[in-house]
Amino acid sequence: MPVSSRAWHLAARPIGEPKPTDFVSVTTTVADPGPGHILVRNDWLSVDPYMRGRMDEGESYIPQFELGEAMTGHAVGTVVASGADNVPVGSTVLHFLGWREYALLPAAVEVLDTRLAPAQAYLGALGMTGLTAYAGLTHVAPVQRGDVVFVSAAAGAVGSVAGQIAKRLGAAKVIGSAGGPGKARRLVEDFGYDIGLDYRAGDLPGQLTKAAPEGIDVYFDNVGGDHLQAALGAMNQHGRIALCGAISIYNSAEPPPGPSNLPLAIGKRITLRGMNVGDHYNIATGYIQQATDWLQDGSLRTEETILDGIDKTVEAFLSMMRGANTGKTLVHLP
Amino acid sequence: MPVSSRAWHLAARPIGEPKPTDFVSVTTTVADPGPGHILVRNDWLSVDPYMRGRMDEGESYIPQFELGEAMTGHAVGTVVASGADNVPVGSTVLHFLGWREYALLPAAVEVLDTRLAPAQAYLGALGMTGLTAYAGLTHVAPVQRGDVVFVSAAAGAVGSVAGQIAKRLGAAKVIGSAGGPGKARRLVEDFGYDIGLDYRAGDLPGQLTKAAPEGIDVYFDNVGGDHLQAALGAMNQHGRIALCGAISIYNSAEPPPGPSNLPLAIGKRITLRGMNVGDHYNIATGYIQQATDWLQDGSLRTEETILDGIDKTVEAFLSMMRGANTGKTLVHLP
Repeated sequence: MPVSSRAWHLAARPIGEPKPTDFVSVTTTVADPGPGHILVRNDWLSVDPYMRGRMDEGESYIPQFELGEAMTGHAVGTVVASGADNVPVGSTVLHFLGWREYALLPAAVEVLDTRLAPAQAYLGALGMTGLTAYAGLTHVAPVQRGDVVFVSAAAGAVGSVAGQIAKRLGAAKVIGSAGGPGKARRLVEDFGYDIGLDYRAGDLPGQLTKAAPEGIDVYFDNVGGDHLQAALGAMNQHGRIALCGAISIYNSAEPPPGPSNLPLAIGKRITLRGMNVGDHYNIATGYIQQATDWLQDGSLRTEETILDGIDKTVEAFLSMMRGANTGKTLVHLP
Repeated sequence: MPVSSRAWHLAARPIGEPKPTDFVSVTTTVADPGPGHILVRNDWLSVDPYMRGRMDEGESYIPQFELGEAMTGHAVGTVVASGADNVPVGSTVLHFLGWREYALLPAAVEVLDTRLAPAQAYLGALGMTGLTAYAGLTHVAPVQRGDVVFVSAAAGAVGSVAGQIAKRLGAAKVIGSAGGPGKARRLVEDFGYDIGLDYRAGDLPGQLTKAAPEGIDVYFDNVGGDHLQAALGAMNQHGRIALCGAISIYNSAEPPPGPSNLPLAIGKRITLRGMNVGDHYNIATGYIQQATDWLQDGSLRTEETILDGIDKTVEAFLSMMRGANTGKTLVHLP
């Protein structure tokens, strides 16, 4: 039976920081699934920083959102009608048709085992978010035993996992930065960091030097801008930087200047490497098995900021982009 | 018998572009060599961009020049007195006590075979310069068969060799940039480039897009600044950048902003890697053997800009820094 479903469409390409009016909620009717297809009632929607880039014009590594079309993104839901034997009604699945209540899609989805972890964990520590942290610290900017590691946006979805992974990989000291004294404290109390910096307190280069007078070996960059500049300054010889995100500039109408101290990378033989989690799906299975164990034995601590209801999706995205949240930001559809 | 020797000392730390008065020529007496030491009459002095950094204060990967002390750098000379059996009088040697007429030093020097190549080649294509180009394109930003390669300062000591090496490594297209139409033409006519760009003609990003509508895969950066920005814009997915030099900013009193499009490295998964030739001496022997063959069979073309006399050392350095020269800049002590 066709169902009524609300979905968020991109109404206007944001200039600078997106406004609520850049998005519009549209009610459509979603048909029954044909052979090989499934109808999913979404339970959890993911909002992620990379989506900001998809709202702009121009080409990218991932298709842009089309104006007037439903937006997409990772989501977890329950199959409510199925035309595919291998994905029966009642299955919990991970797919890419988020920002909506119901999704009609081919049955080529990942069926999740919710006995091992709650469904929404597959959007966070067991999903793209956790794999990003893991791949970044093992393959892009590999942590070696005894390293000093610095992570920005450390209280965010990726950063709150990255610090704990860096410690498991043998880092001698893991330093995180976040916005505000409360978050900086939580980095240490809840997310396994040895030192939490509050970048809003200013003088990040000075804070970093004080936290790591011996210099840093690995920097996991979620922020760009001043954070990248500070990290380049503090970096040791042969340091490694994973360029994972640049949330400090995603909302800039005009791109701000890059780090003026980038030439330090020459003398220090620093490697900066851009990363996209999609290049690392080959290690996902192994990572998820490990991380599932860590979640089950309580040694990997995660946090979710949850907003309830499809109406809250835009608010969830905007507050996440402003750095108002801690851990993984999710929309729950009750 | 002690000899009288003139040597260049650093008289003042340059602010911005060095002035002739930042250097002073000092005459000293150099003693006879004791056991294990040699006295070398320098025949050729090397002037190189990295020396500009040594004139500033502060720590670096290489010791700074001391104010009021003789400067150093690569030089080739003839042993005129020896306290070491393994380096007899008459040997041609490579060492690091340049910027002077006579050098007294331990016999732990490289003895050169001048039947294979002229002595000064060991300061250029067979020396640090050539190895820099080779290591950069094989180990730092490895060229793969079919790649499009872009080299800046392409008519300089490193760049004039790098283009030819990139072609040997299988690059499908090698693009160089240099200052002025004459140099741009010589890139193609003399140094093996497929396309020569004149960056002084402006709109480097546009020139690069026109030269490589298919995008570039490897960028060998000797310049930084606008060149790095243009290369990041033109780079293909999984592109590689060797950060070898930043001559466009070495003379800046205040560091200019970095590339505002550095975040492109995230989506394009670009690797930027700072390099120092000192990390690659393990491949020097093999490279020199190869390059000697190329020089002998005429397949590697090189050029030298030669100034005569110790008096001209500062002028040689300054004109090289201004980009006035082509190929390797040398001072010849007749």
